[in-house]
Amino acid sequence: MVILTLNCGSSSVKYQLYDWSSRAVLATGIVERVTQPGSKLTHKPVGALEFEKEHDCPSHQEAINLLIEVIQDADHGVIDSIDEIKAVGHRVVHGGERFNKSVLVTDEVLAVFREIQGLAPLHNPANIMGIEAARALLPNAPHCAIMDTAWHQTMPAKAYMYALPHHWYRDYGVRRYGFHGTSFLYTAKRAAVLLGKDPFETNLIIAHIGNGASINAVKEGVSVDTSMGLTPLEGLVMGTRSGDIDPAIPFHMLNAAGMKPDEVERTLNKQSGVLGITEKYVDRRDIEQAAQEGDKLSQLAIEVESYRLRKYIGAYAAALERVDAIVFTAGVGERGPLIRRLATEGLENFGIKLDPRKNEASKTANAETCISADDATTKILVIPTDEELVMTEDTQALMEGSYDVHTNFTYSFQSPDYFNKSRNACIDADLEKRPELAEIILNTPVESTSQAPEDCE
Amino acid sequence: MVILTLNCGSSSVKYQLYDWSSRAVLATGIVERVTQPGSKLTHKPVGALEFEKEHDCPSHQEAINLLIEVIQDADHGVIDSIDEIKAVGHRVVHGGERFNKSVLVTDEVLAVFREIQGLAPLHNPANIMGIEAARALLPNAPHCAIMDTAWHQTMPAKAYMYALPHHWYRDYGVRRYGFHGTSFLYTAKRAAVLLGKDPFETNLIIAHIGNGASINAVKEGVSVDTSMGLTPLEGLVMGTRSGDIDPAIPFHMLNAAGMKPDEVERTLNKQSGVLGITEKYVDRRDIEQAAQEGDKLSQLAIEVESYRLRKYIGAYAAALERVDAIVFTAGVGERGPLIRRLATEGLENFGIKLDPRKNEASKTANAETCISADDATTKILVIPTDEELVMTEDTQALMEGSYDVHTNFTYSFQSPDYFNKSRNACIDADLEKRPELAEIILNTPVESTSQAPEDCE
Repeated sequence: MVILTLNCGSSSVKYQLYDWSSRAVLATGIVERVTQPGSKLTHKPVGALEFEKEHDCPSHQEAINLLIEVIQDADHGVIDSIDEIKAVGHRVVHGGERFNKSVLVTDEVLAVFREIQGLAPLHNPANIMGIEAARALLPNAPHCAIMDTAWHQTMPAKAYMYALPHHWYRDYGVRRYGFHGTSFLYTAKRAAVLLGKDPFETNLIIAHIGNGASINAVKEGVSVDTSMGLTPLEGLVMGTRSGDIDPAIPFHMLNAAGMKPDEVERTLNKQSGVLGITEKYVDRRDIEQAAQEGDKLSQLAIEVESYRLRKYIGAYAAALERVDAIVFTAGVGERGPLIRRLATEGLENFGIKLDPRKNEASKTANAETCISADDATTKILVIPTDEELVMTEDTQALMEGSYDVHTNFTYSFQSPDYFNKSRNACIDADLEKRPELAEIILNTPVESTSQAPEDCE
Repeated sequence: MVILTLNCGSSSVKYQLYDWSSRAVLATGIVERVTQPGSKLTHKPVGALEFEKEHDCPSHQEAINLLIEVIQDADHGVIDSIDEIKAVGHRVVHGGERFNKSVLVTDEVLAVFREIQGLAPLHNPANIMGIEAARALLPNAPHCAIMDTAWHQTMPAKAYMYALPHHWYRDYGVRRYGFHGTSFLYTAKRAAVLLGKDPFETNLIIAHIGNGASINAVKEGVSVDTSMGLTPLEGLVMGTRSGDIDPAIPFHMLNAAGMKPDEVERTLNKQSGVLGITEKYVDRRDIEQAAQEGDKLSQLAIEVESYRLRKYIGAYAAALERVDAIVFTAGVGERGPLIRRLATEGLENFGIKLDPRKNEASKTANAETCISADDATTKILVIPTDEELVMTEDTQALMEGSYDVHTNFTYSFQSPDYFNKSRNACIDADLEKRPELAEIILNTPVESTSQAPEDCE
C-alpha cells in the first residue's frame, strides 16, 4: 500500500512515495521550473541511482503527469502501476482559521481553500492547482490536505491578534496564523520522546531554520506562539525573506525610492533576508565561508540572523516561563553549529548552556542529538524533521478513519522504539567515521542496512 | 538664568521654563490644535493657578509667539522679559546617523535636519518649523537640538540592521534608529544611582510606556537595542500605533480591502495599537475599567499589550545575558501596575520576581520605587522620567561649552543627592496619605515645601 505526498510550490512540485506496509520511503523527487522554460525532474529512488529528466512543464498538471510516469517507469520506477497509490497527501500552506487538523479533500474543502487564497497569494494558488491536477490524474484515490497552519490553531488570542483595527481581523482575516506546523508537530512529539516526558507536560522552543525559517513556543504540548504571521514573511531572518521590520519601511521605500507596492512586496519576499544583507548569498554555507574569508557583509548576515534568533528564544522563554528543551531542526538548524552557538551561548543565567564540542559534532542531519551541557536545566536538541512522514501518517489515518487532531491522535514516531529507518545507514556510516558522535546521538540505530540511501552525506 | 525647552509636534507645542540658578521648573505648558481651528494654550506656572487661553495659531510660529507672550504676562507670567531666556533646547525626533549627542543649532545642522526629513515625515517637519520660529523670535539666544535618536547611536550593527537589501541602508537610510533616547538616558543614569552601581557596569531593560512606547536594552551603560526602528511605529503595542506586525499586512490590505498606501500608513499610526483592538479607547485607564466591567476587546488589548512587553523583556534579557534591573517609566510605566504585573509575573526562573503588593502601591508618578521581591536577582524599578531636565542640562552645558556625549559627561541627576525637587511636595503628600509607600520609595525627599505643584495627584 503506497502513499504519495505532494508539495506544490509556485514553480516546483516535490513528491515522496511511501510504502505503508514496510514503513519505508520508496522514492523522493522534485520537478523544478514548473510553468517556466527548462523544467526538469530529479527522481531519487531509495537504494538506486538518481535519475534526471528534462521535460517541458507549462502547468502543475503536466509536472504531476511527468512524475507519475517516472515513478512507474520500467528503469527508474518504484511501483508497477499507479493503482498501487492508495492515497495522496497534499501540503497546503494556508488553512486559515477553519482547519485545526488534516482533512480529506472534498469540493467543499477546495472551495474554502479558494476562498482564503487571498491570505496566501504566493502559496495557496499552487497548492490548489496541485490538488486539482492530482485529483484529475488519480481520481480513485482519496486526497488529503495537510495544512502548515493547523498545528498553530491552539495559540491564544494574545499571541495571534495584532494591535490593528479589530475589523481587519473580522473582515479581512488579519491575524497570526503561523506556518511550518507539520515540522513543529513532528519535532515536538519527538522531543517529548527523547526527554522521556508526556508530550502534554513538555515546554519547548523549536527553531525550524531552512531557507524559510520560523520558531515555535510549545506549552504543554501545544503551540502557543510562533514567529510567522498572517503570511510566512514575518519573524526570523530567512534566506530571501526579511522577517521582522518596521512596518513603516515599505511606505518609506514608496516615497523615498519611488518603488511600487508590488515591487516592495516582492523585494521583501525574494531579495531580502541573508541574500539582502550579503548582496549575493542565500546558502548559509556560502555565507559562513565568505565570512571566514573576511567578507564583512557575510559576517553581518550571520550576526543579524543569529541575534534575531537569540531574541526570539528569550522572548519565548519569557512566554513559556519554563523551557524543557530548545530544539533545532531543518537544514540550517540541523547542520549549522555556528548559528546555534551564536543564538544560545552566554545564557547560563537562564538555564541554557550549550556544550560547544557537542554542538560542533552535530551536523549529520541524520541523527537526533543532545548538544547541551550536562548541567544545563534546559536541554538543547537537534532533531532532523520529517514533514513527509506526518503527511503520510495523516493521509493513512484519514483513509482508515482513525485520524483526529494531534491532541487525540498518536503518531508512530511517538513510540520510544521508533527510528527513522531511511536514515539508519547514514548514521551507521557517520558513527564509523566519527565515533565521537555516539555520545550525543539520542536514538542510536538498532540495526543497519549495507546500502546507504543516495541522498546521505 | 532661564532655559526654555520646546517640543513641537505636528499640531502641538509643549514647553518648559527652567531657572538654572535655583534648579527649579518655573512653568510648563502646551499649545494644542496648532495649525487647526480652536487652538488653545494651557499654561501651568509652578505654585500658581493654571491658565488657559484660546487663540488662533495657524502656524508653529504663532504658537511660540503666544507662549512667549504668556510667560511674561503680568498676571500669569513667570519671567519679566524674554531677555531672561538665555538658551532654548529643542526636541528633535529624528537625528539620523549624524548625531550621537545634542548640538548647537547652526544653519548647517538645520540643513542636515531638512535632508533627513524623509526619515521622519510625521515628526521632523514640525521640529524644524519650531526651531525656525523660535530662532526668529529669540535671535540672541543659542538654540540647541536634543535628538531622540542620539542615545541609541551606540547600538551594534547586528541590532540596527534589518535583513533587507543592503543598498536600502546605503541609499535610503533604512536601519533601526530608536527613539525616546532622552527618557532612556535619564532613567538609565538614575537606575545606576539607585542600584549603587557605576552606570557603565549596569545592564538594564527600560520600558518607556506612554501613548508612544518603546523598550531599550542597556549594556554597560549604553544602548545596545531598542524596539522602535526606522520610525516610531515599530515595536511595542502603543496607544494608536500597531508596533510589530507581519510586513505583508499592508500589502494584504491594499489587495483585500482596496486601501491606498497612505491610508494604510495612517491607520497603522493613528487607528491601531490599543485603540485599534478596543475600537474605542486610547487611555489605558479607560481600557482597564472597561475590562473590569467585562468588555472583551479591552481585556484582549491588555493581554496583547502586556504579552508583547513580556516577550521584549525576554528578548532583551537574552541579548544582555545579565540584567541588573528592569525599569518602568512614562505614564503607563509609572502608573500601570496591571501591565507591569502581566509583563513580569512567573519569570522567577530568570531571576525576575515582582512583589505584587509593592507593585500595586507604586503609582504615584512622583517617586522612584523598587517593586521587585527582596530575593529577586533582577530588581524591578519604577522611575518617573524627566526628558525636559535632560534637554535643559544639555542646553545649559552646550551654552557653557562643557557638554559632551553622555559617556564623557555627568548630569546633575547622577548625584546620589539629587532629588527631583518639583516632585518633592507630591511625594510628601503621598506619604502622608499612603504610609506603605515609604517602604518602596528609593530616594526619599529630604525636605518638602508646603505648596504642592498644581499637576500633582
